[in-house]
Amino acid sequence: MILREADFQQMERFFRRNFFNTLPGPRGLHLIGTKGHRGIENLGLFSSVVHIGATPPHLGFIMRPLTVPRHTYHHLKAQGYFTLNTVHPDILPQAHQASANYALEESEFEATGLTPFYSDHCPAPYVEESSIKIGLSYVEDHYLKSNDTMFVVGKIEEVIIPETVMQDTGHIDHNALHTMVVAGLDTYFDTEENARLPYARAKPKA
Amino acid sequence: MILREADFQQMERFFRRNFFNTLPGPRGLHLIGTKGHRGIENLGLFSSVVHIGATPPHLGFIMRPLTVPRHTYHHLKAQGYFTLNTVHPDILPQAHQASANYALEESEFEATGLTPFYSDHCPAPYVEESSIKIGLSYVEDHYLKSNDTMFVVGKIEEVIIPETVMQDTGHIDHNALHTMVVAGLDTYFDTEENARLPYARAKPKA
Repeated sequence: MILREADFQQMERFFRRNFFNTLPGPRGLHLIGTKGHRGIENLGLFSSVVHIGATPPHLGFIMRPLTVPRHTYHHLKAQGYFTLNTVHPDILPQAHQASANYALEESEFEATGLTPFYSDHCPAPYVEESSIKIGLSYVEDHYLKSNDTMFVVGKIEEVIIPETVMQDTGHIDHNALHTMVVAGLDTYFDTEENARLPYARAKPKA
Repeated sequence: MILREADFQQMERFFRRNFFNTLPGPRGLHLIGTKGHRGIENLGLFSSVVHIGATPPHLGFIMRPLTVPRHTYHHLKAQGYFTLNTVHPDILPQAHQASANYALEESEFEATGLTPFYSDHCPAPYVEESSIKIGLSYVEDHYLKSNDTMFVVGKIEEVIIPETVMQDTGHIDHNALHTMVVAGLDTYFDTEENARLPYARAKPKA
């Protein structure tokens, strides 16, 4: 079936939200940890992390409109640091609960039962239970007028991973880690490696 | 193990590329279709598509540095339209081949064997074999100085999907479609729905 703008506008609000959020397919799933200036540890669940570049290493993600308080954004701008933490099935219920809207003075770590973990290098809290922990410093953000959202960029300062999942080629073995992905706001998927394909080259025309 | 900037710098070039590309985990996988002003149909493989908002519906993605010709970027800016098309296992070899670096005058459709498909609404080519086809108009882009990359935003103008996978709630059934994801540049994953969890609410403190 073909749907266009007139169809989009007729969709009931929650139907439309689910439709467009799940439409492009499953995407990466991360807990973002930050710390407020009063010491409150904050945790949020995000599905918009993208790789920007490897040299130097940067990641970016989308912040929803700042028309309501966004603790993650305020903390990472104030402190200058945030952490990205992957999700696997054992911590899915806690990770999902981190998407609830808690008050500023409440720590999502406490509320969800996930454990804050600190290195001596990154002042923002990691999630101890996550297999991959990435510590980033805030670099830049861009206001997207399209939906009144913000694209935030961070530089990778620190990576904490089990040594056993780092392959000789540099690849991280996400199959061994059972790293999860998500479609929309609520539908979580397991991943299973299908193939690693050799670098694709243009074939000369016959 | 803990890795920091000094470790990142010591990594061999390809090792570092694989490491940082796969680090955050599997992410969405899409073929982007565009059409050049001389009529050449272009196809590229991307792993950086993010949901920006549902009302009105916008998606964004990262373009790698424009220091070499990027046909997708030039075409979508010139014509003002592009398409996003999902990947499932049946078309994985062709989709991967679309990541090869073809000359401007060569069509990746022809080179990969994927079939261009046009609606009467979107002037950019869809991939007929893809289960979900999304037609977008170019809206805005942002230069990310971090890695000399570009974040491109498009507005969803048209959606072509099998009616059977649209659930009553608005969710798209990606489990039925076998929509794939990718870690880094070469490691493809199947997805399997684990759970759809109810909207998370903050629990009142005991």
